[in-house]
Amino acid sequence: MLQKKEETISLGRYLFERIRQLKVQSIFGVPGDFNLTLLDKIEEVNDLTWRGNANELNAAYAVDGYSRVKSTDSSANGFGCLVTTFGVGELSALNGIAGSYAEHVGLLHVVGIPATSAQQKQLLLHHTLGNGDFTVFRRMSSAITQTTGMVADAATGPEEIDRVIREAYINQRPSYLAFPTNMVDLEVPKLSLDTPIDLSIPENDPETESEVLERVTELISNSKNPIILVDACCARHGATGEARKLIDLTKFKFAVTPMAKGAKYIDEDHERFAGVYVGTLSYPSVKEQVESSDLILSLGAMLSDFNTGSFSYSYQTKNVVEIHSDYTKIRSANYPNVRMKAVLQKLLESDKLKEAASKYKPVEVEKDPFPEEKKDELSKITQQWLWSKVSGWLKENDIVITETGTSSFGIIQTQFPKNTLGISQILWGSIGYSVGATCGAAMAAQEIDPNRRVILFVGDGSLQLTVQEISSMAKNKTKPYIFVLNNNGYTIEKLIHGETADYNSIQPWDHLKILETFKADDYESIRVSTVKELLDLFSDQNFAKNDKIRVIELMLDTMDSPQNLIEQAKITAQTNSN
Amino acid sequence: MLQKKEETISLGRYLFERIRQLKVQSIFGVPGDFNLTLLDKIEEVNDLTWRGNANELNAAYAVDGYSRVKSTDSSANGFGCLVTTFGVGELSALNGIAGSYAEHVGLLHVVGIPATSAQQKQLLLHHTLGNGDFTVFRRMSSAITQTTGMVADAATGPEEIDRVIREAYINQRPSYLAFPTNMVDLEVPKLSLDTPIDLSIPENDPETESEVLERVTELISNSKNPIILVDACCARHGATGEARKLIDLTKFKFAVTPMAKGAKYIDEDHERFAGVYVGTLSYPSVKEQVESSDLILSLGAMLSDFNTGSFSYSYQTKNVVEIHSDYTKIRSANYPNVRMKAVLQKLLESDKLKEAASKYKPVEVEKDPFPEEKKDELSKITQQWLWSKVSGWLKENDIVITETGTSSFGIIQTQFPKNTLGISQILWGSIGYSVGATCGAAMAAQEIDPNRRVILFVGDGSLQLTVQEISSMAKNKTKPYIFVLNNNGYTIEKLIHGETADYNSIQPWDHLKILETFKADDYESIRVSTVKELLDLFSDQNFAKNDKIRVIELMLDTMDSPQNLIEQAKITAQTNSN
Repeated sequence: MLQKKEETISLGRYLFERIRQLKVQSIFGVPGDFNLTLLDKIEEVNDLTWRGNANELNAAYAVDGYSRVKSTDSSANGFGCLVTTFGVGELSALNGIAGSYAEHVGLLHVVGIPATSAQQKQLLLHHTLGNGDFTVFRRMSSAITQTTGMVADAATGPEEIDRVIREAYINQRPSYLAFPTNMVDLEVPKLSLDTPIDLSIPENDPETESEVLERVTELISNSKNPIILVDACCARHGATGEARKLIDLTKFKFAVTPMAKGAKYIDEDHERFAGVYVGTLSYPSVKEQVESSDLILSLGAMLSDFNTGSFSYSYQTKNVVEIHSDYTKIRSANYPNVRMKAVLQKLLESDKLKEAASKYKPVEVEKDPFPEEKKDELSKITQQWLWSKVSGWLKENDIVITETGTSSFGIIQTQFPKNTLGISQILWGSIGYSVGATCGAAMAAQEIDPNRRVILFVGDGSLQLTVQEISSMAKNKTKPYIFVLNNNGYTIEKLIHGETADYNSIQPWDHLKILETFKADDYESIRVSTVKELLDLFSDQNFAKNDKIRVIELMLDTMDSPQNLIEQAKITAQTNSN
Repeated sequence: MLQKKEETISLGRYLFERIRQLKVQSIFGVPGDFNLTLLDKIEEVNDLTWRGNANELNAAYAVDGYSRVKSTDSSANGFGCLVTTFGVGELSALNGIAGSYAEHVGLLHVVGIPATSAQQKQLLLHHTLGNGDFTVFRRMSSAITQTTGMVADAATGPEEIDRVIREAYINQRPSYLAFPTNMVDLEVPKLSLDTPIDLSIPENDPETESEVLERVTELISNSKNPIILVDACCARHGATGEARKLIDLTKFKFAVTPMAKGAKYIDEDHERFAGVYVGTLSYPSVKEQVESSDLILSLGAMLSDFNTGSFSYSYQTKNVVEIHSDYTKIRSANYPNVRMKAVLQKLLESDKLKEAASKYKPVEVEKDPFPEEKKDELSKITQQWLWSKVSGWLKENDIVITETGTSSFGIIQTQFPKNTLGISQILWGSIGYSVGATCGAAMAAQEIDPNRRVILFVGDGSLQLTVQEISSMAKNKTKPYIFVLNNNGYTIEKLIHGETADYNSIQPWDHLKILETFKADDYESIRVSTVKELLDLFSDQNFAKNDKIRVIELMLDTMDSPQNLIEQAKITAQTNSN
């Protein structure tokens, strides 16, 4: 049956309507001639805005930060979307996309590609390798995405769009969608939009699931001193609500890994919170409590080197239950396809668990005091002192972003208030990520609650990779705090190797001029060198209010570093030379 | 036989000694913990310097510009080398590497990767996808490189290093070399360095080659009005010397394509130079002379859309000889593996050619006057006026870099003095390229002749993608001229689609603050709005001397564009919608 015009919409608009249904309100990316007509469709969608980035890598980082923040806005998973152009644009984004893949962040990478007619003729278009191969870039992306797809015609386009979105969303990984220029304006039935994309995670096989529940509840019943260890994939796959309920119901102690620090619902002011567990790099009390437990319930573990103190876990018990996003492992037994969220929900409903919980006698949580150094008011700031002071300045609902470097290690020493969201790229660890991520996070925060503060800690070295994204933050009227740790180069590298090597030095910048150069509307640029200057700033009520974009340069000694980073760097240098 | 210590060198040093043998004096890239010990080896090599870039994409652009400039320094091909780190670093460079692949620029991409021991254990290291796959990034690079390789042990390491270098050099394409951290300090015989890598291009099959020579000289003998068309691959594969000899010997007219404008030896002040041929977008006299010729000798053609006025060649003759870097085509006949440089050398020695040349009666070269607009001194600069004025300011030996946008189209209207080197990325067309390329070109110029000026024309939109590379230029004490065409956004995109669309707008910057923010040592920042201001600047002898780094902001109306770009944009919009 022929559709009347009003009953159809363009395929381009169909895509963005679907994206909007996943609570996405911002689209990231950079325009290019193969995506321009597609970008026109964004403004046809209610409450959807194009946020231009300064380049594609930054756009990929931004959508990652955006997706992470949006996951805190509802019980849904996070999601985001960036649009780039064929070849030149999409390849620039790959490092960012790979990071989202490694760290389980859901997003869609849409690439505007040449018209199918030009592809069939193998035209030697600009942005091609000159060899008539129009699928090479999609193949490259397939290595770092959950799935790739292409809009090929009006008949199958909607289904293909739904498929790649679903795959990205339920697996919390990036997907890739190629959108030829001549597909954008093809008309498709509008009615399809009324049926939401099926975003349900497949149910666990009932028989296997009951076996898992039986074994887990048995281990729990027999345990005197269990601990719950919340890790990255628990946060990424939207299961921290269930984790929190498990904590509250059982009154078991819990710890987090660096990658789960500042996860939704996993509050550090909770009476059962034992601290951040990083193997041998943990504080003594955390290490002792985790490793002496007689049962470890590990939720969404991502056992990467920087997340585990270089694989230095040493549990005394063999009673380890690992619940992952797509399988469960109990001691040595694997249960494929027994997925975290569903199994946790069933566990919470289980009478055996409730019975075990009622019998459990809570073991007291021990905490090392967060290290606090007394410092003379006129002395210089040090990292050791800084990170404990940050604790006092943070507020509920803050979003705290740290860079792979001194800040992602230092922040472990900072105590987060309730509902603080922590963002850091511990596994992928691409320097420069945090600046792009802050751009996206700030836009998500703007959508959720403009009073929610977005706070970045980035080193002067990492800042140089992606500095222009501060311009995008200004363009989009966001009001983040950008703390630049000026320690005169790549300190994390210097700790690993080449302390005085020329390659670890950078051009010094005048950080206080950045916002002026980028013509931010209303801004503040502050340099802080001494203890007193920072204390004054942190007690200033005007400064506490996120009413403008700010750069705060913190002057630090070159080799001044958090102790855990110094130790990690030694191990890394050793691994590299073996 | 066991080697004595003094008879061996480390594998890491072996690599850089080999690179140095190809006249490379600068290494580009960004440090990362998987390449730090490798970077230590650079300073062990005589006259080889690490040039840190601000990020990896910029480093890839820089090495491309460097390689292009170095090709003008000798009869050798150009070459360059960049070093990145596993995963995060190398993926950021891919777009730049793909550009070098598309445009035939020879370079080596060295990637510091985890120790082979860590790979075998499939450790969940940072900078991995978390899936134990350590070859995934190499596979991604294989799509956009001539070859990929890995240093696997001391026995085969030197041979593997030589192989990837040779492949990159003789094919003038990027190669990829993975260098595990634990291979860097393995010792290998020093003696191997005494035998240079065999960089000779395979000889053509004598029989096929003579057939080609016979047919070509016959066509030449029968031609009354031939023309030589010099294109990109003639420059990239070091055959412009032969092309120039052919021009001088035969006295045939010649034209260039946009991608060969400003190629070495192909001087625009030559009496036989007819102009720049871009199909229908050419000046009338060039178009007429090329298309009415009875024989076209096309050298190194790269028939991409922007290089051909969107495939609008319309030769009247069927007598077309295409000599490519790796094959020759005469009318409809293909001769595989009859390579350009050798066949041109044989042609130059051929008696039949000399005879034909002696009988040839040179046809007068007709030239349209370069358009010159009279403008009131107080009126604003326009693109049409600007590009002709640039002609008068350029000097012999200048290096002129233009960005995909108004400048790469506008520069076609500029007449280049002798030995001007033109650099532009016409096929790949990645915006932001020119800023990185300028960084590398400036370093190559510094090595060849510090008085050689490096002049960049970049739009305000493109500048934003890679602005931090100006910091690297300052750090490395180079003195380029950076002309920023401030036309308030992505004008080339606006011409194609979305003139007033929000996605084509950018955050305005204060360009005069950039050098101050990046703490350049000695710099000048100038804003030019009127005709008089530019004329004054161009007649200023102090300004003509490249004794400091300069940013010159040229204020232009938003939609003011070179006429050829306006026409190209219309065709591109049409191709995209079909």
